[in-house]
Amino acid sequence: MILHLEKNTDTARLKQLADFYEAITIIDEQKIVLITPSRFKNIEEAHQPFVKEVFVFDNDIQLASRKYLKDKRTVQIGQSNIGGTFRNVLVTIGPCSVESEEQITQSAEFVKNLGLSTLRAGSFKPRTSPYTFQGLGTKGLTLLDNIRQKYGLSIVTEVRDSSHVDEVIAFADVVQVGAKSMYDQGILRKCGKTHKPILLKRGFGTNLQEFVQAAEFILSGGNENVILCERGIRTFETKTRFTLDLCGAAYLKENTNLPVILDPSHAMGYAYGVPDLARACMAMDIEGLLIEVHPNPQMAQSDASQQLDHQQFETLFGTLKGIATAINRTII
Amino acid sequence: MILHLEKNTDTARLKQLADFYEAITIIDEQKIVLITPSRFKNIEEAHQPFVKEVFVFDNDIQLASRKYLKDKRTVQIGQSNIGGTFRNVLVTIGPCSVESEEQITQSAEFVKNLGLSTLRAGSFKPRTSPYTFQGLGTKGLTLLDNIRQKYGLSIVTEVRDSSHVDEVIAFADVVQVGAKSMYDQGILRKCGKTHKPILLKRGFGTNLQEFVQAAEFILSGGNENVILCERGIRTFETKTRFTLDLCGAAYLKENTNLPVILDPSHAMGYAYGVPDLARACMAMDIEGLLIEVHPNPQMAQSDASQQLDHQQFETLFGTLKGIATAINRTII
Amino acid sequence: MILHLEKNTDTARLKQLADFYEAITIIDEQKIVLITPSRFKNIEEAHQPFVKEVFVFDNDIQLASRKYLKDKRTVQIGQSNIGGTFRNVLVTIGPCSVESEEQITQSAEFVKNLGLSTLRAGSFKPRTSPYTFQGLGTKGLTLLDNIRQKYGLSIVTEVRDSSHVDEVIAFADVVQVGAKSMYDQGILRKCGKTHKPILLKRGFGTNLQEFVQAAEFILSGGNENVILCERGIRTFETKTRFTLDLCGAAYLKENTNLPVILDPSHAMGYAYGVPDLARACMAMDIEGLLIEVHPNPQMAQSDASQQLDHQQFETLFGTLKGIATAINRTII
Amino acid sequence: MILHLEKNTDTARLKQLADFYEAITIIDEQKIVLITPSRFKNIEEAHQPFVKEVFVFDNDIQLASRKYLKDKRTVQIGQSNIGGTFRNVLVTIGPCSVESEEQITQSAEFVKNLGLSTLRAGSFKPRTSPYTFQGLGTKGLTLLDNIRQKYGLSIVTEVRDSSHVDEVIAFADVVQVGAKSMYDQGILRKCGKTHKPILLKRGFGTNLQEFVQAAEFILSGGNENVILCERGIRTFETKTRFTLDLCGAAYLKENTNLPVILDPSHAMGYAYGVPDLARACMAMDIEGLLIEVHPNPQMAQSDASQQLDHQQFETLFGTLKGIATAINRTII
Repeated sequence: MILHLEKNTDTARLKQLADFYEAITIIDEQKIVLITPSRFKNIEEAHQPFVKEVFVFDNDIQLASRKYLKDKRTVQIGQSNIGGTFRNVLVTIGPCSVESEEQITQSAEFVKNLGLSTLRAGSFKPRTSPYTFQGLGTKGLTLLDNIRQKYGLSIVTEVRDSSHVDEVIAFADVVQVGAKSMYDQGILRKCGKTHKPILLKRGFGTNLQEFVQAAEFILSGGNENVILCERGIRTFETKTRFTLDLCGAAYLKENTNLPVILDPSHAMGYAYGVPDLARACMAMDIEGLLIEVHPNPQMAQSDASQQLDHQQFETLFGTLKGIATAINRTII
Repeated sequence: MILHLEKNTDTARLKQLADFYEAITIIDEQKIVLITPSRFKNIEEAHQPFVKEVFVFDNDIQLASRKYLKDKRTVQIGQSNIGGTFRNVLVTIGPCSVESEEQITQSAEFVKNLGLSTLRAGSFKPRTSPYTFQGLGTKGLTLLDNIRQKYGLSIVTEVRDSSHVDEVIAFADVVQVGAKSMYDQGILRKCGKTHKPILLKRGFGTNLQEFVQAAEFILSGGNENVILCERGIRTFETKTRFTLDLCGAAYLKENTNLPVILDPSHAMGYAYGVPDLARACMAMDIEGLLIEVHPNPQMAQSDASQQLDHQQFETLFGTLKGIATAINRTII
Repeated sequence: MILHLEKNTDTARLKQLADFYEAITIIDEQKIVLITPSRFKNIEEAHQPFVKEVFVFDNDIQLASRKYLKDKRTVQIGQSNIGGTFRNVLVTIGPCSVESEEQITQSAEFVKNLGLSTLRAGSFKPRTSPYTFQGLGTKGLTLLDNIRQKYGLSIVTEVRDSSHVDEVIAFADVVQVGAKSMYDQGILRKCGKTHKPILLKRGFGTNLQEFVQAAEFILSGGNENVILCERGIRTFETKTRFTLDLCGAAYLKENTNLPVILDPSHAMGYAYGVPDLARACMAMDIEGLLIEVHPNPQMAQSDASQQLDHQQFETLFGTLKGIATAINRTII
Repeated sequence: MILHLEKNTDTARLKQLADFYEAITIIDEQKIVLITPSRFKNIEEAHQPFVKEVFVFDNDIQLASRKYLKDKRTVQIGQSNIGGTFRNVLVTIGPCSVESEEQITQSAEFVKNLGLSTLRAGSFKPRTSPYTFQGLGTKGLTLLDNIRQKYGLSIVTEVRDSSHVDEVIAFADVVQVGAKSMYDQGILRKCGKTHKPILLKRGFGTNLQEFVQAAEFILSGGNENVILCERGIRTFETKTRFTLDLCGAAYLKENTNLPVILDPSHAMGYAYGVPDLARACMAMDIEGLLIEVHPNPQMAQSDASQQLDHQQFETLFGTLKGIATAINRTII
C-alpha cells in the first residue's frame, strides 16, 4: 500500500504512521510517501485525516506499478531524456570491457561519429571463472573518465559487488547493475541513495516479479531514476547463450512505469544473430538498446563471440533507423 | 551423411548401398539421394564410383542443414511462394478454432479485404483438458472447405494425432503440426508422403536440435515443403504464457535451409502484448507470421485471452507494413 | 464439478443433466458420474433432487484429485496390487528396447531370478531422429508375448502414436504412454476405453497441471487404472539428460489419488548416477521404480549410456531392499 | 592447468612462471601450486625442470575436479569431519532467520536434545522484496554467539553481500553463501582468504559448471574447505517453489572432490513435501542435509510455509536414521 501524506505532517505523526504500517518513507518537495508491505490493504479510520491518497496493490510491485503512476517515468541521461512523453530510443554501444586507452578511444570516436550520446564499457567484470580476465578495475574508470571529458559522451558502466559500489556511483553517468548482482542489497541500497540513473539488468534466473521488486529496493530508497534491462534468461535451449524474453518485455511495458532497455548481445551470445535481434528489439517500441560493439572482436578479452565490429554495426544502424521511423521513435 | 547417386544407378546396387550405410532413400527426377545416420563420416573406396557427391554432418540435422543446401528452400502456398530468393512474408491470421459458419465467414472476409492470401483455423484441437471445447472435427473441415471455394483463400489447419492425419492432409492447403504433436511419428511419416506444405510447430519443451530432427522425418520421407514455426517455449517465467524464442529463430535462420514462421500469439498468451511482439517478429526478417485474430475474442471457445479483434489487427497491420518496408519484405 | 447421480436415473434425465452441465458421463455398477468443466461451481436448485453428491474443484484436476477420492486408488498388475492400502513398491526393470530373442530372454531370466514380477521393454520407439533405431514394432510384441508365457511376467510396453494403439493395448499388461506421446488424444481416448493399467509418463516440457489433466482424459473415459510416472523434466541444466523432479513427485503424492512411479534412468541419462537416484526414488515412498537394465549396455541400440548391466543392478538391488525396509515397503 | 612446483622454487622463478602461464598461486607447507586458465594444455620444455607435476583440464573446473584430487576432500566442522573417508552425514537444522532470543534458544535446545552438532539460522536475509523482514543483522549474530557458547553448537549462518562479509566470517563456524550471492566476488574472494568452512549454495539459475567455478574462486584463493549445497533450481514447474536437482547432485558427486549437502526445504517451499524429500536426499549418499525447522512455523518472519515444526522433524528424524543405516552413514 502507498500512502501520500500532506507535506506539513508533523514528525511525530509521521513516525507513528510509518511504524504502524511498517512503512518505508520517502520525503520529497511536494509530498511524503509511505510505502507499506502490500499485505496492508486499507487504513484505520483514525488515520484517514492525515492521508491524502491511498494506493492498494496485489503484491510488492508498488512504486513501479502503473496502478500507482500511470504514465511512464522520465529518466534524464546527460542532456537527453528517455521515457515519459519522449519518443527517444537510446542506442548504447561499446565494448564488453574497457581494455586499453587505444581500444576505448576507437570506440568513443565511433560512437561520436554515429551521432550517439552514450558509451558503455565495463571495468569490474563479474566473471564466472577466476581464471579469466577480471577487468581493469579502478584503472578502467580513469580511462573512461578521460574519454567522457574528451568526447562529451555519457558513460554507462557496471558495478560488480558492494565492495566498490561507492566508486562506481561517484564515477558513472548511468550505473549498470549486472544480471549476477541484481539481488545484491549492498548495491541496491546504495543505488537508492543517489539520484543517478540506474540501469538494472534482469538476472538470467530471475522472474519478472523479483526483477521489478529489485527495482522497488532502489525506488523505495528514494531514487526514481530506474531503467529495467532485459538481457536474456536461462532456458533449456543451449544453442544460443540465453533466451531473450520479449514476452517479458511486453509485460514490463504494460504493467510498470519504468523505461525498458533491451540487450540482444548477451541474450544471443553470437554475433551472427545480433543484427536480427537488435531490429526485433527496436520494433518492440521500448526506450533503448544495449549492443556490444568492439573495434576488434577477435581480440576482445571477454565476450569475444558476441561483439559486432564497427562495420557490422554500421550496416545494422541503417536498418535500425528505418524501423525507428516506422514506429515513430528517434534514436539518441 | 548424404550421398548423391547417379540417376541411372541400378536397383541392386542402390539396395546394396542403402543397406550398407543404413540409409533412407529418396528418388526424384534428377537424382537418387541416400541419407545415412550422421555417424557415417565417409564412404568405402569401392563405393566411390557410384557416388557423385558426399555431404558429411556433425549430427542428424542433414537435409535441413545449410551445409547440404546453402540456399533457403522455396515453398509454394497457393499461388505465392515463400523462401528462396523471394522477399515475401506470409501473414496468416484467423481464429484459434473454427466455431461456426458465421464466425469463419467473418474471418475470411476480413482476410480477403486486407489483401492477404491465407486463413488459419483449427478443427481438431489438442486441448490439455478433457473438459473444454475439443474442436468441430470433420464438420469444421467442411466449413473451411466452403470458405476456401468461396473466397479463394489457402487454408492452414492442424492435425492433432494420427487417427485423422489422412483426412487433414487431404483437405488442408498447409498442414499444421502442432506443438504437442510434433514428435508424433504417425503424423510425421504421413506428412513425408505428401507434397503439401507442412507447417511444423516447435514443441514448447523441444530444443532446436530435436525440432529440426522432426523436420528431418518429413524431409527424409520425401516431402521438401517444410516450414519451421517457433511459437514460444516453456520457461520459469509464468507472467506470460510462454517465452518467444527469437534467439532460436536467429539460430534456425543461420543454420537451416527451411523457411521460418513466427507465432507471437501463443507465445504471449495475452492480446495486450501481441502487437509489439508481432512487430518484433516481422523485424526478424523471416518468412511469415501466424497471428490469432477472432471477430469476437470474448466469445472464443479456445484461447480467448490471446486473440486480437479485427480492429486491433487493422491498427497493427499498418505498422507491420512499415517495418516490412524497412527490411525490404512484401507482405502476402 | 463432479456429480453423483442415483443409479436408477432415467436416460432422458441423464441426458438433460449431461447436456446442461456439458458433462462427460461414466456409468458403473454402483453409480452414474457426471464430470463437468470445473468452471461449474454449483447446481441449479431444480436439479438437486437427482443428484446424490457434488464435488467442486478449482481447476480441471477432478477425478484424480484427493478432494474427490481421498484415498489412493489401487491398481492391479498381474497378481499384485499397488496403491490403496498396499505397501508394495513395484520395481520394473528391463532394456530400453526389445532387440532380439536372446537379449530379451536374458533380461526375463534376470528379472525372474530376482523375484520381480514385471519386465519392461519398448517395441515402438519414439526416437527424435529418423536416422536411428526405430524399434522392432509388431515383431517385438511377439517376442515379448513368448517371454510372458514362458516366464509368467507382466509386460510393460510403450505405445508411440495412435496408428498402433489398439495393437499395444491388446497386447500389453501395462500400457506405457511415453513422455513424447502424453498429449496424444488418439492414444489417451483409446486408453480410456480399456481397463488395463496405463503408465502415463510426464512429458519433459509438461507441468504438473497438464500432466494430471492428461490422466483426466483416461479417467473420464472410464478407465480407473492410471499410474503417473515422473521421468525428468527439461531444464537449463544439460550436464545430465533431464532433471528428475522429486518436488513434483511430492506434489502428486499430496494432491492426487493416483499411484506414482519414478524413472531415474531417463532423468539422469548416465548409468553412473542411476544407483544413487534409484535409492532416492525408493526413499520418496512411492508405488514403483522404472529402471533401464540391459544384459550388455554397450551393445544397446537405444539409450546405451544410461542402462545398468546386470551386475550393477544386483548391487543396487541390495540397498534398495534396505531402504524399502526402512520405510516399511515391500518390493514386488 | 595445475602445476606443482618444488617447495624450494625461488621467488623470481616463481614469479616468472606465474606470469608466463597467467597463474594464480597458492603456497602451502608442502608445495607451491600454480593454477592457470584451462586453455593452457602443456608447459614449455624450458620450464619442465621446475615443475614436479602437471594436471590438464577440459575447462575451468580444476582444483575441484576429481582429475586433480581423486578422493573427496575432508572438511572439519567443530569437532567433526565430513567428506574424506568419513561416513558422516551432517544434519543441520534450525530456523530460516534468528528472530528472538526465545526462538533461537528453543531451537538450540531442540538440536542439542537430538544429539546434533550444528545450528543454522540467518541474520542477514537476502529478501527479494524491500517490504518484508530483512533479518536482525549484527544483533542476530550476537544472539547466535551466546547460543554457541551456552550449547556448544557450531553455527551455520549466511553472508548476504560484501558489505558485511568480514563480520560474518569472523563470527560463523560455517559461512553460508546464499543462492542469490554466489556470484558475488566481493564475498568469494574474502572467503578464499579464511580457512573457515564455506557452505556455497547453488544459485537457482546457475548451471553446474558455473556453480563449481564459483567454488574455484574460493579454492584458488587458498581455502580448501568448500562444501557445495544444492537447494533447488528454477524451472517451468511452479506448483513447488523450486525443483531439487538430484541429478545434478549425482553429477557433483562423480566429478568433483568437494563434499555435497542438500537442502530440501528451499527446493520444495512447502512443509508437506519436506519429509519425503529429506529421506530422498539422505538416500543420495551425500555429506549432509540442511532442513529448516522452527519452533512455531506459523509465526516465522520468513519462509513460514516451508519450515517443519519440532514434532514433524522428530518423526522425520527416526526414518532418516533408518535410511542412514541402510547406506552405512552416521548422522552427526
